[in-house]
Amino acid sequence: MAELPTRVQEACFEVGIKFGSLYHQFAGTPVSVASAESLERAMAESIENQPHCRDVEVSIDREAVRNASDRTHGYAELTGTMLDCRIEVSVGDVRAVAELEAIEDYPEMRITELETGTS
Amino acid sequence: MAELPTRVQEACFEVGIKFGSLYHQFAGTPVSVASAESLERAMAESIENQPHCRDVEVSIDREAVRNASDRTHGYAELTGTMLDCRIEVSVGDVRAVAELEAIEDYPEMRITELETGTS
Amino acid sequence: MAELPTRVQEACFEVGIKFGSLYHQFAGTPVSVASAESLERAMAESIENQPHCRDVEVSIDREAVRNASDRTHGYAELTGTMLDCRIEVSVGDVRAVAELEAIEDYPEMRITELETGTS
Amino acid sequence: MAELPTRVQEACFEVGIKFGSLYHQFAGTPVSVASAESLERAMAESIENQPHCRDVEVSIDREAVRNASDRTHGYAELTGTMLDCRIEVSVGDVRAVAELEAIEDYPEMRITELETGTS
Repeated sequence: MAELPTRVQEACFEVGIKFGSLYHQFAGTPVSVASAESLERAMAESIENQPHCRDVEVSIDREAVRNASDRTHGYAELTGTMLDCRIEVSVGDVRAVAELEAIEDYPEMRITELETGTS
Repeated sequence: MAELPTRVQEACFEVGIKFGSLYHQFAGTPVSVASAESLERAMAESIENQPHCRDVEVSIDREAVRNASDRTHGYAELTGTMLDCRIEVSVGDVRAVAELEAIEDYPEMRITELETGTS
Repeated sequence: MAELPTRVQEACFEVGIKFGSLYHQFAGTPVSVASAESLERAMAESIENQPHCRDVEVSIDREAVRNASDRTHGYAELTGTMLDCRIEVSVGDVRAVAELEAIEDYPEMRITELETGTS
Repeated sequence: MAELPTRVQEACFEVGIKFGSLYHQFAGTPVSVASAESLERAMAESIENQPHCRDVEVSIDREAVRNASDRTHGYAELTGTMLDCRIEVSVGDVRAVAELEAIEDYPEMRITELETGTS
């Protein structure tokens, strides 16, 4: 590349990496209403370890878990349609936020905030 | 198979499934000394959802995490050499326990208890 | 354990490990009718690396992939209901085979052959 | 966000998602020199299914696999230090390329091309 990516572009890239990581590390994990809380916390804390990551919020929809649970065994495997996530990264003075939301059964991930600080 | 597997054989099979699941679901997860506890709990609670599973104990070796951590970024990715696990299943009146222990950098999994109840 | 597990019990344990590994390593992988073949091959060849593993056969149901595919994006994420697998292990002169089959949307894994050789 | 992200920003985000997905879906997969080729192909073809993804090239370093392989069992688990990847996405007329390269044992991912077409 003739020029280096700008910090805004890097921040968009970094928040994308975090989303892909979160999703594909944990998709398929056995989850029940009872175990959803510990999974939410582990997902958030593990991704917060990654470079530039400031904050991760993960919410697993209990109703969606219940509906997807197998009758006999009482649990489901984590999919994107059960997830609501918000990830915030910063690169230099740029802050980027992206969110995952299930839209018609497809987990859409999109950038929702991009801010260049005055610090 | 001419005959069905015995309950003891089924219990050995089931505890094997749990180990493979635990390991390959979570290997590669970003982990630091600070986030190890939430990951231990999520690993145990998620696998406990699986059929026949009675108890899962997961311990992540903080020293191993620290040693494996990248200097710049301060975290590692979970591997078998950081893990100490014990999984207990029951099939009918048979109880099987297996454990994972790192032996010369290879995570060995083996059956450590097999018991047929008198209930 | 007072006594070591028998080779039959170990073979049951080992084939269980392989199933859990296969399933939780690859569940959630993006898959389409066009990419199913390379995924089948990689799943089989990767698990065949594991100790005691003699043969792994993986078949991804194209019709199930098509039905699960998101309309807009044309692909699905791999789940147990798309999978048909057969795994063979041997421990000493014992051969164990297990199979995965989706029963009412739950991927049931069970031992289908257990044989002690006369070699 | 007051304004929508630009196509360039979206392209940076999308290529980031693909990298995080590729890495965390497949990290931990059992791999040997013999099975590396099928894994490379499955990794590339599965991620190419994702929205906006034009091309994925994955190369697994055979020497690194050999060095990381356990002596007794002859295979390793896939980590970032064995991987060389290039992913290309397009969003509208914007093309973004990112690459993964192991730098001092840490898998660095960075944007290497960003181009706005004249189509």
